[in-house]
Formats: sequence, structure tokens, C-alpha cells
Amino acid sequence: MQTMQTLKRGISNRRYPDRPLIGVGGIVFRDDHVLLVKRAREPSKNKWSIPGGLVKIGETLEMAIKREIYEETKVKVQVVDIVAILDRIIRDAQNKIEFHYVLIDFLCKPLSVNEPVRGDDSKDSRYVKLSDLHKFSLTRGTKDVIMQAFLKKENPIYFKL
Amino acid sequence: MQTMQTLKRGISNRRYPDRPLIGVGGIVFRDDHVLLVKRAREPSKNKWSIPGGLVKIGETLEMAIKREIYEETKVKVQVVDIVAILDRIIRDAQNKIEFHYVLIDFLCKPLSVNEPVRGDDSKDSRYVKLSDLHKFSLTRGTKDVIMQAFLKKENPIYFKL
Repeated sequence: MQTMQTLKRGISNRRYPDRPLIGVGGIVFRDDHVLLVKRAREPSKNKWSIPGGLVKIGETLEMAIKREIYEETKVKVQVVDIVAILDRIIRDAQNKIEFHYVLIDFLCKPLSVNEPVRGDDSKDSRYVKLSDLHKFSLTRGTKDVIMQAFLKKENPIYFKL
Repeated sequence: MQTMQTLKRGISNRRYPDRPLIGVGGIVFRDDHVLLVKRAREPSKNKWSIPGGLVKIGETLEMAIKREIYEETKVKVQVVDIVAILDRIIRDAQNKIEFHYVLIDFLCKPLSVNEPVRGDDSKDSRYVKLSDLHKFSLTRGTKDVIMQAFLKKENPIYFKL
């Protein structure tokens, strides 16, 4: 019972928020592979996505994305550039706002050469070949943002956000 | 007394937050002038800044910046592009985090030709000639972001965020 209550409190922090929450995501390429994690919680539990999470109080966006990627995959990164800013507003069956995130996605470069390992908030984690992305059940928008990040990595000067 | 309590509640929503709050700012040019507002509240009360404010629940970033600029100046705008994303973390004398904002600034284009007028959250509002900016007491970072927006407006394709 205690466990159930704790679980509910944890979820209620994110569901039906008073204000939008700020999340960061990181697109990390190694050659023609991209770093993905299998989500351990709602929304989109069990789907594959780029690593990321909520920004904590007192933390810069850069600190947040480095921390989240490390926590979820044990891969250390440096931030290269911003790729996208997305509004994610999800309503429930009664049309009330159940989730509201502003997501800021960064192109990141791996600093460590280790294979990713499953971390705190992820069920699995791996580098996936870009040509194999269609084999994974991805969260909405993930493929687009990976492609945007890839273009930005290849042509930084001509890319317009 | 009631007024004082109401005032304190209003402020306490923003001070010592549990999570970072998301704000938007708009840089609006008319010829060689930029739209500024005189801030009616802390932080940086009475200083001049670009118009903007907090994103409300259920509102996209684009909706938020259009609403804020209209509320503060009665100028209608369309959003052209993103200019900057800034972390604003301000600690008090005890080193506790008093304010934490993630600010997303947009280059905007005026749709209405009216002179700006003082709105809900601003004490004054006007188009200021770029060469007169040094005569105004601006909030930290305002001049830089105006210059970044101006470069982006003039050279959209070569600008790298």
C-alpha cells in the first residue's frame, strides 16, 4: 500500500501540472548509429526514444542533459548545439491537460567510448543503426528529431532551426 | 492586509520554485527600432526589457509569446524564428535558488501598426531606436539578445544559434 502511494505521488508530480514542465533530450551519434533508450514510464512507456528527462531546480539545460544521458545510459557527452524546441501538450479523455512539457533537444557528442548500459529511468539502452530505426517502436517525433540532428551535424552552418 | 497577502501569494508563485519556470520573450523590430517594456515586477523591476512572460498550462510557446506581447503592449505579432535559449538562475543571500527561469526568445514581426501602449504587466512600452538603447537601464542580457535577433533578421540563413 505504501509502495502504491509512493508510486502515485511520483506520477502526480508530472500529471495534471499547474505549469508546463521543462524537459531536455539528447541526440547522440556514434558513426551511423544513434543512442536510444526504452522508456520505463508514462507517457509512451516501453517505446524507444532519445535519452532525456526533466530539468531540476538550480540546474542549467546543459547540466540537465548531461546528467540525464549519464543516468539512463552511463554515456558521457558534451553538448554541441540545439536541434529543436517542441510543445508536448497531452489531454485526457475529459479534455483536461494531463501532461504539458516543453522539450528542448540537443545534438550531443559522446565523450566516452563505452557501450550504453541500462540506467535508472530506462529499461534498455543501445546505439541503433540509422537504417534499423524502422524496426523499433519509437515515440512520436523521435525519428524526425534524429533526422534534424543528423542534418545539423553534417551541415551546421546552413541549418536553420 | 488582504492586499499584502494577495501580493505575497502572487510573488511566491515565482520565487523559490520547485521546478524551473518557462518564460518567453519577443524581439520585435519596426525599421531600426525595437519594442521595449518597463518591468512592473521583480526581478529587475523598473528596468527595461523585451516583452514576455511565463508560459501558461495548455499553451504553446507561440501562443504564449503572442499573448504576452499583446497584454503588455497591445501590439499583435507573428513569430518568425527562435533567437536564444537562456538559463536564468538567481540565488538569494543564503545561496538558495530564489528564481529559476528557462527563457526562450523569439524574433517576431509586428502585424499591427499601432504605437505600443502600457499593458497589464508593464509600466511603460515603446519602440526604442537601436542607437538610443544605451540611454535605457536594460535588464541583463537584453542588449545582447536584441543584437542577436537583429543579425538573424538580416542574415537568417547564415545564423547559427
